[in-house]
Amino acid sequence: MSRTYDRDSVEFSRVLAFTDGLFAIAMTLLIVAVTIPHLSDGNSIHELADALNDLSPAFVSFFISFAVIGRYWLAHHQFISLLQAMDQGFIALNLLYLAFIAFLPFPTALLGEYFENPLSIVIYAVSVGIVSGMEVVLFRHAHRRNLLRRKLTPEVYRFGVIASLSPLVFFAISIPIAFVSTTLAVLTWFFTIGLGAMLERRAPEGVESLLG
Amino acid sequence: MSRTYDRDSVEFSRVLAFTDGLFAIAMTLLIVAVTIPHLSDGNSIHELADALNDLSPAFVSFFISFAVIGRYWLAHHQFISLLQAMDQGFIALNLLYLAFIAFLPFPTALLGEYFENPLSIVIYAVSVGIVSGMEVVLFRHAHRRNLLRRKLTPEVYRFGVIASLSPLVFFAISIPIAFVSTTLAVLTWFFTIGLGAMLERRAPEGVESLLG
Amino acid sequence: MSRTYDRDSVEFSRVLAFTDGLFAIAMTLLIVAVTIPHLSDGNSIHELADALNDLSPAFVSFFISFAVIGRYWLAHHQFISLLQAMDQGFIALNLLYLAFIAFLPFPTALLGEYFENPLSIVIYAVSVGIVSGMEVVLFRHAHRRNLLRRKLTPEVYRFGVIASLSPLVFFAISIPIAFVSTTLAVLTWFFTIGLGAMLERRAPEGVESLLG
Amino acid sequence: MSRTYDRDSVEFSRVLAFTDGLFAIAMTLLIVAVTIPHLSDGNSIHELADALNDLSPAFVSFFISFAVIGRYWLAHHQFISLLQAMDQGFIALNLLYLAFIAFLPFPTALLGEYFENPLSIVIYAVSVGIVSGMEVVLFRHAHRRNLLRRKLTPEVYRFGVIASLSPLVFFAISIPIAFVSTTLAVLTWFFTIGLGAMLERRAPEGVESLLG
Repeated sequence: MSRTYDRDSVEFSRVLAFTDGLFAIAMTLLIVAVTIPHLSDGNSIHELADALNDLSPAFVSFFISFAVIGRYWLAHHQFISLLQAMDQGFIALNLLYLAFIAFLPFPTALLGEYFENPLSIVIYAVSVGIVSGMEVVLFRHAHRRNLLRRKLTPEVYRFGVIASLSPLVFFAISIPIAFVSTTLAVLTWFFTIGLGAMLERRAPEGVESLLG
Repeated sequence: MSRTYDRDSVEFSRVLAFTDGLFAIAMTLLIVAVTIPHLSDGNSIHELADALNDLSPAFVSFFISFAVIGRYWLAHHQFISLLQAMDQGFIALNLLYLAFIAFLPFPTALLGEYFENPLSIVIYAVSVGIVSGMEVVLFRHAHRRNLLRRKLTPEVYRFGVIASLSPLVFFAISIPIAFVSTTLAVLTWFFTIGLGAMLERRAPEGVESLLG
Repeated sequence: MSRTYDRDSVEFSRVLAFTDGLFAIAMTLLIVAVTIPHLSDGNSIHELADALNDLSPAFVSFFISFAVIGRYWLAHHQFISLLQAMDQGFIALNLLYLAFIAFLPFPTALLGEYFENPLSIVIYAVSVGIVSGMEVVLFRHAHRRNLLRRKLTPEVYRFGVIASLSPLVFFAISIPIAFVSTTLAVLTWFFTIGLGAMLERRAPEGVESLLG
Repeated sequence: MSRTYDRDSVEFSRVLAFTDGLFAIAMTLLIVAVTIPHLSDGNSIHELADALNDLSPAFVSFFISFAVIGRYWLAHHQFISLLQAMDQGFIALNLLYLAFIAFLPFPTALLGEYFENPLSIVIYAVSVGIVSGMEVVLFRHAHRRNLLRRKLTPEVYRFGVIASLSPLVFFAISIPIAFVSTTLAVLTWFFTIGLGAMLERRAPEGVESLLG
């Protein structure tokens, strides 16, 4: 007998304001992890260039993470556009999903500091994988409790689950690869975006709005 | 003669935007307290695994605090859904409530660093207890100034106060326990969630929407 | 020929969302300035108690600053409730006002670290004084460009300016006092709240909504 | 066949809430980069004054960056006021634009630490230049996909592109100047504001709302 909140209610929009605030902070905090280098001669161009060069893994991991978290935000934005209402269970699950989003600055900073350590890659891939898993949990809950604007056909529902889980495959594959080459493992992650585009082309009718 | 702001007003929604922003930041800052370990050999899986293992209290306290603060956010969200308006006094009290929410990253970081120090537990339990106390102050103010959508029966009002105060009991009990075992003290906090579920089952009629 | 945005527009509410987000962050960042103490024996209650005792100026300055910035947020909230529209000039001035709000975590951290240094008090008082001054600038702009819901009588307008400037007096007085006793200087700031209450009692008719 | 979201939709306002949150955080984080100085005698006015004097480049870069990012926020606010809808492509491009906004605290902190190092100036100018470039990308996308409220004449469209790109000229010029004098290079940036005002006076009819 959980209460539900319509799309027009103050309560529906509060959940989104909270979610968007948390995403915005998690994405902006990524840069705080990049500390300003200490130079022996502050005016030396050469020394600063060297120091910034040493920071390049940190910049790479900032932009990768901004892209990865940004992609989850886009998927969340698109997913919520399908909802007509939220119930208490959905709000609690969304909070759990956000706990893992809020955690992401840590594996990102780890990756920026120890880019060539396979364990950094594993921790990053697992963290991001959990977020993809939580996406499916949210989608499943919304489907079962009739929170979606339109009832989905079983085929469309199954397709949505697969589309949400597909990044998991690439993040899972990247784990053994990390022990061979961490750069190769990170490149694997970029296939996720390609996969999304490929899936979109093979989508059953009426599904276009389900892909994040 | 304090002014009141209706549920539809810009002013009502500003208070919520501010509140949600502050909650989102307090919950995301928790991870900033977890500093990246320094390794003598950055590529050593073994050394990084050891360093991360040493950080496990910090991870535990991140997830505990995310759960604890998240639960307060859920309770606030549910409580505000009962309001038809806010007055200046309510907005000021809400600000006081948020001061203690904004403070929580400190005891959380303390707990992450000194998990086995009973004083960390005491400070955490007291901080969280004050938040529960402030919840009651907000509820009482809304009840007395007729800011609630429906007038509550005395029985339902009393039940709401007890439900808000119940976590206090468990946090109070955890304080002496902390001097025996800090792990046991933290486990006590998990009973709060169980207690919430139990109270919900024993609730008088028409009260279901009062439980956070 | 600057464009104006009505109270119902997306643009009006964006300015407030941005403002509230910035306030929420500035108020939450205050606690980040309080660093976790380093103990030689992490399990020693005595040592942690001593370390926290050394941090008490930091806690005091957190709560003072939360109260001070919170009061400015309340004043801003109340002031905006009088507006029917914003123009480009108002939005730019509001941004300038927010620059000084965003700056406040620095003097707060300084005060927390060097509570007994008169210069900390001076920098804090000047920073906060500028915010009060900017409040008057915003109020004056809104009055002159007819952005207020109701045209103010000259008496009510003058009263509003004085009410906004009154904290300045107390912050100015606190500066010489700081060189005698910093604790006394901080106590002076609390009179601001008393003054606000006193002014409210002496307010001309129709002015009640102007006091922050 | 990308979905579009109208100005009144929850989805349109979510993008803005996310954007405003990210801007507010990026602008507030700027002050976190300014660390509290360590004094040998915490009560010495003289020593604190010296230490703060050493921090003056950090304060200057805080206020410059607040002004620079604030100006981009104003431009974004004004630009969005011209939109009647957003499509998925626009939302994704806006996210890319925000990646560079979120990055700005890093070059700002670098500038605050190494104000006289020409490389700091170069990195700052390039970062800010990319943001101006992204503004044009957003404007172009909105124009081509008919997301603007009114169809623009080619003349007005061209003028809008030039107005967005004009800061680029000044940031580009500042790069060689930085190798002669970094102070002079920073002064160059202030001409951007003057240029904006000058362009506004020469604008073709119907263009007044396009200038950021």
